[in-house]
Amino acid sequence: MKPTGHHFLGYETSRKKQGSFTSIDATNGEPLPGTFAEATGEEIDRALTLAQQCAMELRDMDRGRRADFLDAIANHMEAQGDELLERAAAETALPLPRLRSERGRTMNQLRMFAGVVRDGSFLEARLDSADPKRKPPKPDVRRMQRALGPVVVFGASNFPLAFSVAGGDTASALAAGCPVVVKGHPNHPGTSELVARSVLLAAKECDMPDGTFSMVQGRSHEVGLALVQHPYTCAVGFTGSLRGGRALLDAAATRNVPIPVYAEMGSVNPSFVLRKAMAERGTSLTKGFATSVCMGVGQFCTNPGLIVAMDDRPTKALLDSLGQELAGIEAGIMLHQAILDTYDGAVRQRRTDEDLTSHVPLRDTPGRAAPALFSVPAKVFLDRPELADEMFGPSSLVVLCQTEDEMLSVARSLDGQLTASIHANEDDHELAQKLTTLVEQHVGRMVYNDFPTGVEVGPAMQHGGPYPATTDARSTSVGTAAISRFLRPVAWQDAPNDLLPVELRNDNPCGLVRLVDGVWDFPPSV
Amino acid sequence: MKPTGHHFLGYETSRKKQGSFTSIDATNGEPLPGTFAEATGEEIDRALTLAQQCAMELRDMDRGRRADFLDAIANHMEAQGDELLERAAAETALPLPRLRSERGRTMNQLRMFAGVVRDGSFLEARLDSADPKRKPPKPDVRRMQRALGPVVVFGASNFPLAFSVAGGDTASALAAGCPVVVKGHPNHPGTSELVARSVLLAAKECDMPDGTFSMVQGRSHEVGLALVQHPYTCAVGFTGSLRGGRALLDAAATRNVPIPVYAEMGSVNPSFVLRKAMAERGTSLTKGFATSVCMGVGQFCTNPGLIVAMDDRPTKALLDSLGQELAGIEAGIMLHQAILDTYDGAVRQRRTDEDLTSHVPLRDTPGRAAPALFSVPAKVFLDRPELADEMFGPSSLVVLCQTEDEMLSVARSLDGQLTASIHANEDDHELAQKLTTLVEQHVGRMVYNDFPTGVEVGPAMQHGGPYPATTDARSTSVGTAAISRFLRPVAWQDAPNDLLPVELRNDNPCGLVRLVDGVWDFPPSV
Repeated sequence: MKPTGHHFLGYETSRKKQGSFTSIDATNGEPLPGTFAEATGEEIDRALTLAQQCAMELRDMDRGRRADFLDAIANHMEAQGDELLERAAAETALPLPRLRSERGRTMNQLRMFAGVVRDGSFLEARLDSADPKRKPPKPDVRRMQRALGPVVVFGASNFPLAFSVAGGDTASALAAGCPVVVKGHPNHPGTSELVARSVLLAAKECDMPDGTFSMVQGRSHEVGLALVQHPYTCAVGFTGSLRGGRALLDAAATRNVPIPVYAEMGSVNPSFVLRKAMAERGTSLTKGFATSVCMGVGQFCTNPGLIVAMDDRPTKALLDSLGQELAGIEAGIMLHQAILDTYDGAVRQRRTDEDLTSHVPLRDTPGRAAPALFSVPAKVFLDRPELADEMFGPSSLVVLCQTEDEMLSVARSLDGQLTASIHANEDDHELAQKLTTLVEQHVGRMVYNDFPTGVEVGPAMQHGGPYPATTDARSTSVGTAAISRFLRPVAWQDAPNDLLPVELRNDNPCGLVRLVDGVWDFPPSV
Repeated sequence: MKPTGHHFLGYETSRKKQGSFTSIDATNGEPLPGTFAEATGEEIDRALTLAQQCAMELRDMDRGRRADFLDAIANHMEAQGDELLERAAAETALPLPRLRSERGRTMNQLRMFAGVVRDGSFLEARLDSADPKRKPPKPDVRRMQRALGPVVVFGASNFPLAFSVAGGDTASALAAGCPVVVKGHPNHPGTSELVARSVLLAAKECDMPDGTFSMVQGRSHEVGLALVQHPYTCAVGFTGSLRGGRALLDAAATRNVPIPVYAEMGSVNPSFVLRKAMAERGTSLTKGFATSVCMGVGQFCTNPGLIVAMDDRPTKALLDSLGQELAGIEAGIMLHQAILDTYDGAVRQRRTDEDLTSHVPLRDTPGRAAPALFSVPAKVFLDRPELADEMFGPSSLVVLCQTEDEMLSVARSLDGQLTASIHANEDDHELAQKLTTLVEQHVGRMVYNDFPTGVEVGPAMQHGGPYPATTDARSTSVGTAAISRFLRPVAWQDAPNDLLPVELRNDNPCGLVRLVDGVWDFPPSV
């Protein structure tokens, strides 16, 4: 169906302003059907008021119902078939097979969170027994995690399904029991509208209260700032650029009531290749880096933008072979023109930078991003911090170290990162140990003998590192632990049993694993 | 011993500036021995540099050693005997028995966190198994909580031991494996110095690295801001006023790298007394509120500053009896003159406020705070939001409701609170249920049929509520869960076993309860 360009304020549709933007077919530059409007202040207020009005009902709702709703969203996204994928492909230039698997991942995430909600461990139920004989008497105290309230989600451009309208942030916030107001990404507004319709169909099917989910569109900064600064907003999820994430964080800092802002931003994901590994794994490193650097036309937040290695013959061989490999990879269409322009500009600058060596011959690929590879001596890299900045696209910079100490200095110089990788053989062990100790301080995930792209969705995943990789390294935006971002603990002291949330009641009616007087307590069935 | 007025920068002492302030004997207004100096920028930088230098060693240290250190601090504080308590009594006017029990609590907290560190559950170890046959292959991912890095702690004036130099924030941060830099509270600098000496004796005894603990003194805002804005600071703990906490939060927001600020600030701790409970428990409510309102001369963050009840005959009887009870309680010396002046000013204002009724006759108590009790119709209270502001001292305001709906409106109007209490009999059940649902949104801890003062230190305690009670309702500053404030998760993917933290290694060498592939895994001994 052709997008109608409406905002979805709970179950209402609205469009107070006339349409002011269209989306562009990224593969050919033509406008796609549908015009979209900036949400007005009134529309934003309506969405958040509806969210606020249902927040307590959602918080207290039977967890099974919330889980069913998440499953239903996955089913409705699936039911949209190729129509959804085709619109997404046009708006992002991402190929259909990639989008098919991205939708699969999105559905898996929704279903995984449904499982998390049913399981209940995320509530971290704790019970401390009363001791009326102690002086003073010890009260009965019980504690669990509860929904924070309305959450505003900003979708990412590079994952139009998995990190957008019904992506990880929305799934984890709904799982936590929070109403969600999404701001659709202005580069895929049609995809956003289709997914929003799926979510709302699922919400109606599951009889969720009005306001559980809203989506507004907008291209202006004003819409984003109004969402973050609205008094009912309790938390913000964002995936995008450092500039965008920081702007939202700063806007939140001016609020009367501070709120958490979970922004996942940039990262160069350094890969340290140690001497023996480089000497013995040339071919697999070449193939591995080429694939990882060019995955999704380099538009992954875990793209390996920095490779740190010894300045020796095997590294020179890798530079040659990786350069050749990248030169043979077809130039790709990026998400939109502005991203391509920024990438092309950065490549041009690096090609003319006298401190850098280019390892891929110049190609004329109009409208497409050609892979690039540069190298720089570690000494220069350490003197020029701007070389460590993220360059979004299919490119990497190899830092050549004269000594192991220089490699450790590069490790020390790093900004916060989503990931760091260490390629090491048995004989590289001593340096690998030192790097592990040093690098951990800067990252959320350490990868060994593998490449950083591909973020496994599971209970142990940590996708979030120190700033500027994210605004809050205490959280993850991928994996089951992402639900914790939208919760806060509440304690009940000496509460009558029937006034307690059911999960904290006597005799453990939900069969949860609970911490009782500091000791794990398992229901008989576990 | 007479305080030397030095700052402690790790194991070094320093005093670059001359002393510029003394502490005042709060019981008689005389200066106490010792002059204290403002820390210079250089001294602050030295403390944080030492902290940064030992951060990785502390993070990776055997947990048993960290636990022994916490135990040793408790032992050294105990060994200081009455000298410590007498200095604290002079600096705060708190009576010796109260300080003796506060030291007991402080030691218990330290030992409790030692137990938490040894136990290891706080690490939240999670392991997801590899599946090399899956396409794409599923990696081995393991995750646990790790120390954030240097933490700056601001002591509170109202708990010179339990929430100060070696109080809950310091204990939980050290337990987490973070170096700590304390800013001594300028109203008890001598007590702060004595406790800092205990901590450093314990650190030496346990061979902790230099920089594990530092303390600087200062009365100026500049010292506090420099500590919060130092690039090595990774988190801030604060207990004090809304104005002070907000200033630190705002200062942190201007940093290049954002950091968490855990400020525990004000609260009026509303108590809802429902109709039947009021009718049937007059005497115990009178005694209970009188004790709770006047505890520590009303200088508790959980002081019941607001009582919400029906405007009926039993409530009028309570106003009379509670007024009489408070009139008979001796006026107390507050922590310092400025706090008394603010309290006296607020009481004077309320006494002349035509909307309020006073229930305690005026007493002339120079230099001391006399308890006060006021009442106001709910309609007026709802029209005048400033009446809900905290009034630090032995005073409470009773809000008189004409209808249950009016009581629910008062509940809806509340700002964030540390606690709320509900006094309800069986027959009050329906309203108690409605209030429970509504009030939870605004508080960290719900108390039933009891008074909010007295915060039990245990695994299920939640001491922290929505702003302005704290700056971060996702955390607690009391109880074992307080350790989580100073941790962040890190994941290791496909790491060689010996490069992993010992807690994540194969065969569970530490015998931890771990989440393996989403299912709880218990070592045989549990």
